[in-house]
Amino acid sequence: MTNEQKMVKKSFLNLRDNLVKSFEKIDGGKFNFKSWKHSGSGGGTMAIIKGKVIEKGGVNISTVGGQFSESMRSRIPGAKEDPSYWATGISVVIHPKSPLVPSMHFNTRYLNTTKKWFGGGMDVTPSNKFEKEKKTFHQKLKKHCDNHNINYYKDHKKWCDEYFYIKHRKEPRGIGGIFFDYLNTEDFKKDFSYVKDTGKLFYNYSNYIIEKYKDHDWNEKDRIRQLRKRSRYVEFNLLYDRGTKFGLETGGNVEAILMSMPPIASWD
Amino acid sequence: MTNEQKMVKKSFLNLRDNLVKSFEKIDGGKFNFKSWKHSGSGGGTMAIIKGKVIEKGGVNISTVGGQFSESMRSRIPGAKEDPSYWATGISVVIHPKSPLVPSMHFNTRYLNTTKKWFGGGMDVTPSNKFEKEKKTFHQKLKKHCDNHNINYYKDHKKWCDEYFYIKHRKEPRGIGGIFFDYLNTEDFKKDFSYVKDTGKLFYNYSNYIIEKYKDHDWNEKDRIRQLRKRSRYVEFNLLYDRGTKFGLETGGNVEAILMSMPPIASWD
Repeated sequence: MTNEQKMVKKSFLNLRDNLVKSFEKIDGGKFNFKSWKHSGSGGGTMAIIKGKVIEKGGVNISTVGGQFSESMRSRIPGAKEDPSYWATGISVVIHPKSPLVPSMHFNTRYLNTTKKWFGGGMDVTPSNKFEKEKKTFHQKLKKHCDNHNINYYKDHKKWCDEYFYIKHRKEPRGIGGIFFDYLNTEDFKKDFSYVKDTGKLFYNYSNYIIEKYKDHDWNEKDRIRQLRKRSRYVEFNLLYDRGTKFGLETGGNVEAILMSMPPIASWD
Repeated sequence: MTNEQKMVKKSFLNLRDNLVKSFEKIDGGKFNFKSWKHSGSGGGTMAIIKGKVIEKGGVNISTVGGQFSESMRSRIPGAKEDPSYWATGISVVIHPKSPLVPSMHFNTRYLNTTKKWFGGGMDVTPSNKFEKEKKTFHQKLKKHCDNHNINYYKDHKKWCDEYFYIKHRKEPRGIGGIFFDYLNTEDFKKDFSYVKDTGKLFYNYSNYIIEKYKDHDWNEKDRIRQLRKRSRYVEFNLLYDRGTKFGLETGGNVEAILMSMPPIASWD
């Protein structure tokens, strides 16, 4: 591993530890850890919690290497010249029990082929009216992005809106967020700092929003709306999500890939 | 419409009426009917029941026409010469409330391009141990197939096993059944009779198996197993089912296409 690779890997591991600690504190329950090996080299560890506050939540980290298949090479930057890759990533999905707390998703990754880049993002999927919180959420995102590049919020919000769109239903998955890929400004420190700060923002925001609403009363109607919204989440992930498709097609760890599925969903 | 097209369409409509009548009798509830128009010509009617015995069940019929898109032409027999198509079909999915009654799926269709053929099949997805019933189910299928062609059971069972296979989980969706496509022996009456008898068998079998188990006791563990099994059903339909993919990609009626989704499913 290069120094850069070591630094990124270590920072994702730290973030994982911090997220696990804070979610366990909020929930009262414990994460279950399970390691898996990649078909190439390396592997990952998934951590799953099934708790009272977090109905189902997963935090995955992985560091893997290998050779891209023939069909992948033309699709991945820098893989045509040499199919070898190295990647490290962290991915988080939280499905809270309370319909007043949104489902939350975050991931960042660092990919190396003959090229190097970061990818990632965070977005939020409430099932209830969330107008005020939506505004606050995007204010926080904008402030975070503006600290790094004045164009990031506009660009990465747009990317998120376009990506997390459920085409067949003509509706967005949630209320947006930020999404970026192929990020390489040729200033590693700068890019890495944006990625790390995205992780911190997710840490702060998820803790804030769960704490704020977890003990508020909700009723059966709220729950029904939540379970319906979650079925759209399933549709998006299985039909459109690149990570899910990529993972399942390349023989990735099924449990880790489908960790994002909600604990229960309805198409009633 | 040709005489053949009229006959097939009418027979699917009859089957729909019989299935709806028998399911309403078993359940005590009523189907809700909703018609939709196709982007080309024609359209369909979906009938959905959300009842006490049938937690969610749908019976769709449709008769549509149009022109296959450029990308479809090379994949559909006879469409290269002329992209016009005409199709009529019936499709049924039943998700019973009791975990002791399997989910059941049936469909048949008649497609005309410059070629003509039938397609269809039926299969069953229990969540409990179903060993004895599995044997009976396949005996009935074999008897039915043998009435028409001594190779059909072997061939169409194999096709079903291969089709309804959840690759990423390395497990079958259910306990099999029969599946066929591009059926044209150049004896329309013979092929049509096989298709009609498949419908009759589904009618008889679904009535038989629901009646047999609907009032048997089950417990929370049975229900949990059922909801988990249903999540695999969702995964199959969204990731692999050709009809679902075809429908969503060609701008079909989303509600009709996703009628097959279970009322509630869990990835707990």
